[in-house]
Amino acid sequence: MASAVSPLAPKDYPDLPVVAGVCFATAEAGIKYKNRTDVLLASFEAGTVVAGVLTRSLCPSAPVDFCRANLPGGKARALLVNSGNANAFTGVKGTASVSTSADIVAKAIGCAESEIFLASTGVIGEPLDAQKFTGVTAEMAGRLKDGPWLDAAKSIMTTDTFPKVAAATVEFDGQPVVISGIAKGSGMIAPDMATMLSFIFTDMPISASVLQGLLQPLIDKSFNSITVDSDTSTSDTCLVFATGKAKGVAPVTDAGDARAAVFARALGDVLTDLAMQVVRDGEGATKFVAVTVKGAISDKSAVRIARSIANSPLVKTAIAGEDANWGRVVAAVGKAGEPADRDRLSIAFGDIVVAEHGERAASYDEAAASAYMKQQELELTVGIGLGTGKATVYTCDLTHGYIDINGSYRS
Amino acid sequence: MASAVSPLAPKDYPDLPVVAGVCFATAEAGIKYKNRTDVLLASFEAGTVVAGVLTRSLCPSAPVDFCRANLPGGKARALLVNSGNANAFTGVKGTASVSTSADIVAKAIGCAESEIFLASTGVIGEPLDAQKFTGVTAEMAGRLKDGPWLDAAKSIMTTDTFPKVAAATVEFDGQPVVISGIAKGSGMIAPDMATMLSFIFTDMPISASVLQGLLQPLIDKSFNSITVDSDTSTSDTCLVFATGKAKGVAPVTDAGDARAAVFARALGDVLTDLAMQVVRDGEGATKFVAVTVKGAISDKSAVRIARSIANSPLVKTAIAGEDANWGRVVAAVGKAGEPADRDRLSIAFGDIVVAEHGERAASYDEAAASAYMKQQELELTVGIGLGTGKATVYTCDLTHGYIDINGSYRS
Repeated sequence: MASAVSPLAPKDYPDLPVVAGVCFATAEAGIKYKNRTDVLLASFEAGTVVAGVLTRSLCPSAPVDFCRANLPGGKARALLVNSGNANAFTGVKGTASVSTSADIVAKAIGCAESEIFLASTGVIGEPLDAQKFTGVTAEMAGRLKDGPWLDAAKSIMTTDTFPKVAAATVEFDGQPVVISGIAKGSGMIAPDMATMLSFIFTDMPISASVLQGLLQPLIDKSFNSITVDSDTSTSDTCLVFATGKAKGVAPVTDAGDARAAVFARALGDVLTDLAMQVVRDGEGATKFVAVTVKGAISDKSAVRIARSIANSPLVKTAIAGEDANWGRVVAAVGKAGEPADRDRLSIAFGDIVVAEHGERAASYDEAAASAYMKQQELELTVGIGLGTGKATVYTCDLTHGYIDINGSYRS
Repeated sequence: MASAVSPLAPKDYPDLPVVAGVCFATAEAGIKYKNRTDVLLASFEAGTVVAGVLTRSLCPSAPVDFCRANLPGGKARALLVNSGNANAFTGVKGTASVSTSADIVAKAIGCAESEIFLASTGVIGEPLDAQKFTGVTAEMAGRLKDGPWLDAAKSIMTTDTFPKVAAATVEFDGQPVVISGIAKGSGMIAPDMATMLSFIFTDMPISASVLQGLLQPLIDKSFNSITVDSDTSTSDTCLVFATGKAKGVAPVTDAGDARAAVFARALGDVLTDLAMQVVRDGEGATKFVAVTVKGAISDKSAVRIARSIANSPLVKTAIAGEDANWGRVVAAVGKAGEPADRDRLSIAFGDIVVAEHGERAASYDEAAASAYMKQQELELTVGIGLGTGKATVYTCDLTHGYIDINGSYRS
C-alpha cells in the first residue's frame, strides 16, 4: 500500500489565527471511518457573507446543488461538512438527506436554511443517512470554539494523508485582517471550478458580491491549475466566509476599492498554498511538478497545453521513473490540439535544456538531467515559440501507490 | 515487470492470405533491440494505389511528414518500417534521415521516392541513423516473398507482447478479393486519426480516391474508438495498399459503386479486429472493456462521454480492482462537458444494472456485480436518457503493469 503520509507533506503546520466571528467543532458520526472525526460544524456570527465556486461537473452532488441554491443570497450562518460519503449520485434520497441535514443545523444554530452551507466528500453513489448527524450536530453546537483549525482540517479528510491548512494576514490602516483556510483532496483531482472541498474563513469586512467577483480568477490560478489524475470530482466546492468582524476596518463594498486587490492577493496566497498541498498529497505522489508553458499563442492556449502535459500518464510515469523523457512531453504537446510548431519547441527540466529547435539539445547532458530528476520538486518548462501566452499547472507523478489506493475495492 | 504476453492475447493467429502484388522481407538492423527483427520492407507491383490516415498530433514524426507529402499522389511501390526509434522530434536530422531512407529504398526497389512510404516507431526524441538501413535494405530487396505475414507483424513491435494480424476475404462476381493487415501498438494509445502503425494490404482493384474516402469513417469506428492511456502518438499511421491484382474483378472507381460498400465492410472488419488487438495488448492490461454510451444528444456527444469514461484513471483502476464502481463512472460522465442529466443516468456492467434514475439501482446485487467484474471481458453501458446518440469506445484496465512498463527509464 501507499506510504502512511505523503513524502511531499509539509514538514510542519502553521498556527492558523483565530477568525473573529467563526467557531467550530468536530465529531465522530461513524459515517464510514472508525476512530476518527468525520463531521465539521462551523457557525458564523450574524452579518457573515459568503462567496463560492462549485464544480462544473454535470453530475454534481446533492450538497453542491444545495450550495448553488443558497450562494446568491450571499449570507452564511453555518457550514456542515462530512467525510466518508459524498452524497453524490444518490437521487431523491440525496436531496432528502441534505434537507434533513439543513433542518438539523438550522435548529442547532438557530438560523434560516438559506444561510446554511453543506458539503460531503467520500464514496460516490451510496446513500448518506442524515440521521447520523442528528445527535452529533446538536452536541457539537453546544461546544463550538474558535480553534484549533487542524482539528477542522482533519475531520474533512478522505484518502488525504495529511491535513491541509494555510493562513495569511493583511493590514488595512494598521489593523490586521486574518484569513484561515482548510482543504482536503488527494484523488479525483482535476478541478474544473474549485477542487474537492476548501473552506476559507476571514474577518474581512467585504460585501458578498465583491468577494464573489474576486474569487473566480483566484481559483483559476490555484485550484483550477492543479491536477492529480485528470478526474474531476462531483463535489468540488470552495467557499469563502467573511465575518466582517475585523476591528477598525471599513467595509469594502466596491470592486474598484484599492483594498480589494490587496485582500485578493492575500486570499490568492491562501488558495494557492492549499492547492499545492492537494498536489503534494496526490494519491501515490512522490514528486511535485510545476509544468510551465511559455510562448503559446495565448494564456488560455498555454493552460491547455500545460494541462495536456500534466495529465499525460506517460509523462507522469516517466517522472516517477526519474527519466527526463522529453519525447513524451512532445507527444503531450502534440495531442493538446493547440497551435504548436514541433520545430520551435524547447523543453527544460529545471535549468537543464533537454530539447530545442525541435530536437535533442546539442548541450544535452544525460548525467546532469538524471541527477536533476532525482529531486522531489521538479520544474518542467516548455517553450512553444509562437507568442507570449504563459501558464503553470501543478501536478505529481503517477506511481504504484496510485494503483494501490484506487485498484482496491470501493475506496 | 508485466507478464511476458498479455493475458488478453488471442489464443491463436489466423493464416493470413497471400496478397497478389505484395512481397516483403524483414531484417535485424540493430536499431535498438537485440536478437529480433526491427525492419520491414514491402514492395508493391506497379499500379498499386494507397490511402492513409495519419496522426493529428501537431508534433508529428518525420516519417509522418514524409507520408503526408506522398499520400495525395495515391501511388505506392514500397513501404519501409522500423521499430525501436520513432524518428520523432528529431529536427533536421529527422528530415535527413527520411531522405536517406527513401533514397536507399528507391535504389533497392527501383521506383520514385514519391511512391515510397515510411514509418518508424519506438523512442521519441533520439536521432535515427538511416545508415543502419543501407545494407539491410538492399539485402531484403533480394529476398522479397509473399509471406509469412506473422514475420512482418513481429518486426514492427515495440512494447507489444504479441504480433497483430487480421484478414478478410470478400467475393465479387465469384472472384475472391483478400485483405491482410498488421498493426502494432500497446502504449501511447488514444489515436486521434489512426493508431500507432497499421498496414493493410489488398488485391482489390480500387482507385486511390475511393479508397481514401472509405478509410476515414472506418478508422473512426476502429482505431479512433480505442484508448489505452489517453496519450496520442506522434507517429500514428494507417496505410492501406491496394494492388488491384485480384483476377476477374472490375475496378471500383466510383464511391457510389455498390461494391465499394461491400469492400468497406470487409476492410472495416480487419481494421476493427486489429484495433481490438491493440487494446488487448494495452500496457499492463488484464481486462478488455467495451464502454457503450447510449441516449446521448448525438453520436458525437456519445463518443466524448464514452472517451471520458474510458480514459478515467479512476474508472480503469476500479476495473483492475474488479469493483463495479459506478460512482467513478458518474464522475467521468460529469466531467465530459457534454449534456447529461444526473437523474436520468443508468449504468450497467454486463446485464447487471447497478444504477438508474440517478442513484443505486433498487435491484442492485453486490454479489452478482462482483462476480461479473471478475471476468476478463467486460461491457460497461451508460444510458444518458436524453436522445439517441450512441458510441462504443474500447479500453483496458490500469494496473501496476502499466507503471512497471512506463516508470522505468526511457522505454
